[in-house]
Amino acid sequence: MTAPASPLHTILNPRSVAVIGASESAEKFGGRVMNFIVKHGFKGRILPVNPSTPVIGGIPAFKRISDAPGPIDVALIAVPSAQIEAAVEACGEAGVPGCVVLTADFAEVGDEGALRQQHLVQVARRHGMRLIGPNCLGFINPALRLALTSSVALAVEPIPAGGIGLVSQSGSLMASLISHAQDLGTGFTVAASVGNQADLEICDFIEYFLADPATHAICAYVEGIRDGARFADVAERCRTARKPLLVVKAGQSDAGAQITRSHTASLAGSDAAWKAVCEQHAVILLDDPEALIQCADFLIRFGPPHGDGIAALSPSGGTIAITADRIAAAGLRLANFAPATGTALHEIVPITRPVNPLDVGGLARDAGLTSAGECYELIAGDPDTAVVLIVVATTPQLDAKVRLWAELATARGKPTAIVFTPGALVDNARKILRELKCPHTNRMDDALRVVKAAIAYGAALNAKQVAAQTPAEFLAVSTYRPPAEHLTETETKHLLNLAGIAVTSDAIARTPAEAVAAAGTIGYPVVLKLSSRTLTHKSDIGGVQLNLANDDSVMSAWQHIENKITALAPGSTIECVVQPMIKGGIELIVGTRWDAQFGALVLVGAGGIWAETLHDTQCALAPLSTEYALSLVRKLRLWPIMNGARGQALADIDQLVDAIVRVSWLAATLGPRLGELDINPLLVKSTGSGVIALDARATFIPHVNLPKAPS
Amino acid sequence: MTAPASPLHTILNPRSVAVIGASESAEKFGGRVMNFIVKHGFKGRILPVNPSTPVIGGIPAFKRISDAPGPIDVALIAVPSAQIEAAVEACGEAGVPGCVVLTADFAEVGDEGALRQQHLVQVARRHGMRLIGPNCLGFINPALRLALTSSVALAVEPIPAGGIGLVSQSGSLMASLISHAQDLGTGFTVAASVGNQADLEICDFIEYFLADPATHAICAYVEGIRDGARFADVAERCRTARKPLLVVKAGQSDAGAQITRSHTASLAGSDAAWKAVCEQHAVILLDDPEALIQCADFLIRFGPPHGDGIAALSPSGGTIAITADRIAAAGLRLANFAPATGTALHEIVPITRPVNPLDVGGLARDAGLTSAGECYELIAGDPDTAVVLIVVATTPQLDAKVRLWAELATARGKPTAIVFTPGALVDNARKILRELKCPHTNRMDDALRVVKAAIAYGAALNAKQVAAQTPAEFLAVSTYRPPAEHLTETETKHLLNLAGIAVTSDAIARTPAEAVAAAGTIGYPVVLKLSSRTLTHKSDIGGVQLNLANDDSVMSAWQHIENKITALAPGSTIECVVQPMIKGGIELIVGTRWDAQFGALVLVGAGGIWAETLHDTQCALAPLSTEYALSLVRKLRLWPIMNGARGQALADIDQLVDAIVRVSWLAATLGPRLGELDINPLLVKSTGSGVIALDARATFIPHVNLPKAPS
Repeated sequence: MTAPASPLHTILNPRSVAVIGASESAEKFGGRVMNFIVKHGFKGRILPVNPSTPVIGGIPAFKRISDAPGPIDVALIAVPSAQIEAAVEACGEAGVPGCVVLTADFAEVGDEGALRQQHLVQVARRHGMRLIGPNCLGFINPALRLALTSSVALAVEPIPAGGIGLVSQSGSLMASLISHAQDLGTGFTVAASVGNQADLEICDFIEYFLADPATHAICAYVEGIRDGARFADVAERCRTARKPLLVVKAGQSDAGAQITRSHTASLAGSDAAWKAVCEQHAVILLDDPEALIQCADFLIRFGPPHGDGIAALSPSGGTIAITADRIAAAGLRLANFAPATGTALHEIVPITRPVNPLDVGGLARDAGLTSAGECYELIAGDPDTAVVLIVVATTPQLDAKVRLWAELATARGKPTAIVFTPGALVDNARKILRELKCPHTNRMDDALRVVKAAIAYGAALNAKQVAAQTPAEFLAVSTYRPPAEHLTETETKHLLNLAGIAVTSDAIARTPAEAVAAAGTIGYPVVLKLSSRTLTHKSDIGGVQLNLANDDSVMSAWQHIENKITALAPGSTIECVVQPMIKGGIELIVGTRWDAQFGALVLVGAGGIWAETLHDTQCALAPLSTEYALSLVRKLRLWPIMNGARGQALADIDQLVDAIVRVSWLAATLGPRLGELDINPLLVKSTGSGVIALDARATFIPHVNLPKAPS
Repeated sequence: MTAPASPLHTILNPRSVAVIGASESAEKFGGRVMNFIVKHGFKGRILPVNPSTPVIGGIPAFKRISDAPGPIDVALIAVPSAQIEAAVEACGEAGVPGCVVLTADFAEVGDEGALRQQHLVQVARRHGMRLIGPNCLGFINPALRLALTSSVALAVEPIPAGGIGLVSQSGSLMASLISHAQDLGTGFTVAASVGNQADLEICDFIEYFLADPATHAICAYVEGIRDGARFADVAERCRTARKPLLVVKAGQSDAGAQITRSHTASLAGSDAAWKAVCEQHAVILLDDPEALIQCADFLIRFGPPHGDGIAALSPSGGTIAITADRIAAAGLRLANFAPATGTALHEIVPITRPVNPLDVGGLARDAGLTSAGECYELIAGDPDTAVVLIVVATTPQLDAKVRLWAELATARGKPTAIVFTPGALVDNARKILRELKCPHTNRMDDALRVVKAAIAYGAALNAKQVAAQTPAEFLAVSTYRPPAEHLTETETKHLLNLAGIAVTSDAIARTPAEAVAAAGTIGYPVVLKLSSRTLTHKSDIGGVQLNLANDDSVMSAWQHIENKITALAPGSTIECVVQPMIKGGIELIVGTRWDAQFGALVLVGAGGIWAETLHDTQCALAPLSTEYALSLVRKLRLWPIMNGARGQALADIDQLVDAIVRVSWLAATLGPRLGELDINPLLVKSTGSGVIALDARATFIPHVNLPKAPS
């Protein structure tokens, strides 16, 4: 055996476990843990530790861990808060390499708890010992028949073994997923709850699972990540290894984020950044925990689909009609069968029936089973079919048909999602699939979520996402020194110009006369805008006057702005930008935000007055490749307009993509110094005419050290 | 007893049933039917009819129905196609008031089958007999212990009784819903499948259920409706009676619509019209069949929620964080608890925890059950709580807590949705709720769908939707005679003017010189547009030239249009509209379409180039009340822009709503003659400045007789 790649290897695969606070009482954490370890028949040595009970669960107990014979690979600690530090210290002295701390009331209850938690980690570190928890429910390792957990999910058999590696910040949620795995006939290499992840954290577990040859898909329930860059790195390694990483991330809403803080002291971070990092690194981001198990099971069984065409069948005409509607509503695509497939299917089903989705109901009883199998083979074999969706409804010979479909799907290796629409009536067919270890769900919602996630994963696996090398011109940008924290429009445009992005040729005017003179030089019509470091939402306060056709208009516009500003801030000196009025084209917003967790986030979306209303925005982490920037643009709702729908001239997509990539390099180069930058609008003109920044603003963060230039 | 209100009363509540084609073989339809009738212990007389078998299921059979002693209230016919007509004839002669025809291969297989179906109805009519089917699976009436169906769902006990009336065009789908009702501990007054609804149709059943005092919610699976106006009428009567009508409508996608045609010969109709009619008449339109049962069960138990505030609790911190995210993602609102509620809750849960949604996990074991109950009472009693959502996860004393919550919910009558996140692990708690007849679901998707539908139903019950009386000015419109099938822009604006909608003052020009002269009169800048009956998408072909500032611009714009048209249609005579260039404001589309099923449909949405890209459209059936027109506008994605977001002047909402109401009366008055009409754009100016139709087109349908004016 080679050396363990992860500090978790010994802890999660122990030859011996100590239970500090072991008890005979099932009402106590330490009692339930002992009960489950014994009940499920752990294959290694069990060492209960309790100062006053000599035998627990029929096993001799030790007064102190120092009394127990070593080596002890892991100690589970289930003692009250007051005794926790001493217990950890004792484990460290006994040379235990890792502790699982169930006890709660640490960082999740506030600052004082956070201090105690920090101290606990220091104690462990002093002994070179690692911690799982605190505020967790332990873990299971089914191959070792080890249930080192107090979760009541382990009250029932079996301890579900399989190819899924699960790490969850919530113990109760882990219990629910263990229960779902039992129901589906799938299971885990390890399922671990990590609570406050004071020491060992989500990413340590993902790395362990990545290195573990028995783990074929990794599921994580995340409330907060400690190191965004590490997560992005390990996610990318999962993609390269083609080992699916599936994540449910709590705290995407404001209310949810408040809860993650109080639950596991986790800062939820920016939702947009999370989604961006997951999309870029082929992480399957799901909204539902149970879907983690359903999707992982599906991908382990069948691998990622090749393509996005769905072929569906059901023995119920009504159900298949709804299936067609649901597939469309989910934004999924029905496969277009080759003519030969249709012809062959119409030898089995009446010619009046559409072939995809396919109603296989009401076929002659004697031939029903054979026909059901033949129909599956025909639709699964069509060149455009990436995934088969079987919607089970009541039908004669249901059990036999379900078994046949599952066997054919397995034999062919074609991704096949089976969903049961009736209830307990068809539990026998469910049992058949459980025994065949064939993935299935009980609700159309679930089936479509699995299919959609699997298809997206298949596509993301192969997409080229990240730009390779810093373009030479950005090495110059790295030495940029901002003139102030909040740049004016003119200063921001200067920065954009350094980055190679076209901007309007603006003039600054301090008096109406200067504005008129500038307008004469620029040529009418012009735009007059307030120039201010502090009033950044100029248009909200009437500080933007468009389409001024002559000297008089410029004079009266200046007066209008001055009146507004004087009302807001009496005694202000007014300074305005004069710039050419450029018409036509499509207004986008292109910007960047520094995300504390993941770094520079680039966003592109509908600009102007639509920017905040439509939420038509796509995000990604900088720097971006041209291909990925284009993929963002193509996902916008306004893409059809740019792409020539409704008589619009085709927009200059190449130059738009170039500008996005340049903004991404600007952000990547300036790093945390650049708090945010918005070009709004970036006017995208017709093909060959380029793009131009009409307005822009930027905010720098003071006192951030210069990062090293990206390599 | 009063006379039956519906022809279905006797058929669905028979004292005696004949089974034509009764058999001993469970492989035959007539065998399964006999088996289920006997097995479930029908309380009335059973009369098997079979020419060759003297005793079936232990019951004496008759060679012919004429041999069976009357009265026979209903006959189920399960004979091969070739014998069906004779069987129906025989039933008619025997004075049977109603037949259930299981046999398929009628209208759903094409024209020839449609003829046979028509003939079958004629035979029945001749005898004053009504038909259910053909191509159906019969019905159940649990109060009579009657399972007059061949559906294998009846193979299991019990035959689920309850307050739901179900009518389904799909028999297999009915079976699935019977199974779900069994699982949830709810059930039916009648569950009927109607297949091709050749005679008795969906609306007959809805009317029956509406009159039936034992039915408290009506569920329908619809592939196509025979009479849209009747459906709207019966739906409105359900609303008035406060008896929820829940519908799943198949065929909303193109693929789905193809299937409904081949499945039950149903024309799916326009999706937009369906959604509009359901919203206007408080019909709960769902995308998932099983959700029919879940929602009906919830509404029967608790009635409609008052308000939209959701209070949620769970014993799992992770689960409650996700619940917060899911509620936000579903567009639902968390209740804002009164300060007193928060204070009281924080005497039970740690002060660090948010109170909504509420994590009730980890409370002291001894007090856990009491605390769980107190927390429920506090959140359910808050004035802003309309619905409580309980997300069950593993926890000590789970069964006791679930029972307590269900009992408290029932006692208080507060709408409470309970969802189980673990699998079979918590089946015992499911059993408790089934026995308590307390609604519950197993997936968050389902729980949120139920809650969302119930809240929307509560709001729709009370909304004033339909305009009362034709405004006097529209009596004049009713005599309008269109000058052509396709109106020009000018002609359409004339019609709009009749309806009291402001339009631009346009001039027609036949030469460039006339255009220049008109522009001089109107005042620069102007717009020059091709005027054509046939080229209706003018802007797609360069036929719209905006913002022309002087005579030269008008001349060159004319030349440009002429060149374009000459290229498309050599030798055409050009005619153009000259109109003032009006800037500012927000562009909407307001229009109407005649829907063959439901009548005049009004639509409002984002106009201009965004109209087809954003799909930001709301629809309703004409005529509209002011209140309802406003509610449509408020649902648009661009509502925040009209409502003053981002520094935009407030739009003239009153005048916009007035214009929509006027378009709706125009459509209602002209009836089927007006095929479609679009104002695009209707420019909505700032408050007090009104709205104005900048462009418009209309198409009339020839050879439609004048309808009588709406009353």
